[in-house]
Amino acid sequence: MRAVQAVVFDAYGTLFDPHALTPQLEVLYPGQGAALSELWRRKQLEYTWLLGLMGRYEDFERVTARALEYACAALGVRLEAEGLKALLETYRRLEAFPEVPAALRVLAEARPLAILSNGTPGMLEAGVRHAGLEGVFAHVLSVHAVRTYKPDPRVYRLAVGALALPPEAVLFVSANAWDVAGAKAFGFRTCWVNRRGAPREALGLDPDLEITGLDQLVHALG
Amino acid sequence: MRAVQAVVFDAYGTLFDPHALTPQLEVLYPGQGAALSELWRRKQLEYTWLLGLMGRYEDFERVTARALEYACAALGVRLEAEGLKALLETYRRLEAFPEVPAALRVLAEARPLAILSNGTPGMLEAGVRHAGLEGVFAHVLSVHAVRTYKPDPRVYRLAVGALALPPEAVLFVSANAWDVAGAKAFGFRTCWVNRRGAPREALGLDPDLEITGLDQLVHALG
Repeated sequence: MRAVQAVVFDAYGTLFDPHALTPQLEVLYPGQGAALSELWRRKQLEYTWLLGLMGRYEDFERVTARALEYACAALGVRLEAEGLKALLETYRRLEAFPEVPAALRVLAEARPLAILSNGTPGMLEAGVRHAGLEGVFAHVLSVHAVRTYKPDPRVYRLAVGALALPPEAVLFVSANAWDVAGAKAFGFRTCWVNRRGAPREALGLDPDLEITGLDQLVHALG
Repeated sequence: MRAVQAVVFDAYGTLFDPHALTPQLEVLYPGQGAALSELWRRKQLEYTWLLGLMGRYEDFERVTARALEYACAALGVRLEAEGLKALLETYRRLEAFPEVPAALRVLAEARPLAILSNGTPGMLEAGVRHAGLEGVFAHVLSVHAVRTYKPDPRVYRLAVGALALPPEAVLFVSANAWDVAGAKAFGFRTCWVNRRGAPREALGLDPDLEITGLDQLVHALG
């Protein structure tokens, strides 16, 4: 992995924990916090894929709201306008996974780092600030620039353009196995952060490297 | 709904029951048949969306095999090459939902009917034959002609071309809420067959009609 000249990170699930809202959901809906969080996240991703394929891009904040509305309806809990607003506001301040800030600071000493995310520019800026990661990233790139979603190759191309590097000089790091597959198909070298011990996708697009946390990336990149 | 000049049906989930294989899965993997069937189906759809967005179409038979491989790995059961082959073979002979054959025969008396499906032409031909529905459909259309998947508008356009009708003269019928959303976005009139009492998708693309079985369509179309 010594030929890697830049590292590009997915944001949600990789740097920021989308399930960090589970306790807040549990307070609002006792006994259903974890199930709501899981379904909310699954539907959020489904809606990005569906709207991408339809060619009807709506930004990630809107998609996140729609997915939460679906999850609440599916689990039979009531979502008031105020609750929705509060949850979306907190979604802009998700916690980073514990090992992330220190690992990123070490990695940034040797190579430019970037974020490439489904999130809106506003969500990403707020997330980076909340995690105290200002100044760590050379580029914070949002799908909003091309108005579609991962794994559309137009999204991965954004990173190649910003970094002015060929795909094979870039290591793309994501905790989302399908995102790793899309990045691999595009031509990036890939690293899957498999924190939960999940099975690989069966898409024939396996990661070049598999780790359980970003701290391991520091050693892998030497 | 009297202005409807043709009715286009989704196949899997709408005419043919993808969960009809649950008993066979249960024999192979006792206690896990239903969970395997659910995960297999969910992953099958995910892979169509992902490969569609990546622009890396693989046909539905291949995607169905990949999804089964994933589901078995995720649930920790062993899938032998022979078992995979047998299950895929049976996937070509899925049972039609009980009310489907009689309802289609009545509907076909008044208007041309068509199938528009993610399935390969070979899978669809075998499915129609197995259900005894030869001669009922004026067109059996597969995404294979455009090498992408629903809800890409290029797929829905296939039906408009084959029927030589404007989208608003066509009623598109699907049990898959996300497929109904894609058809509605394309401009079809839409009918959602909600057999399981599921919540609507929160995509702002609601069906024009919601029914619990195709028998109700006979009355709705007058």
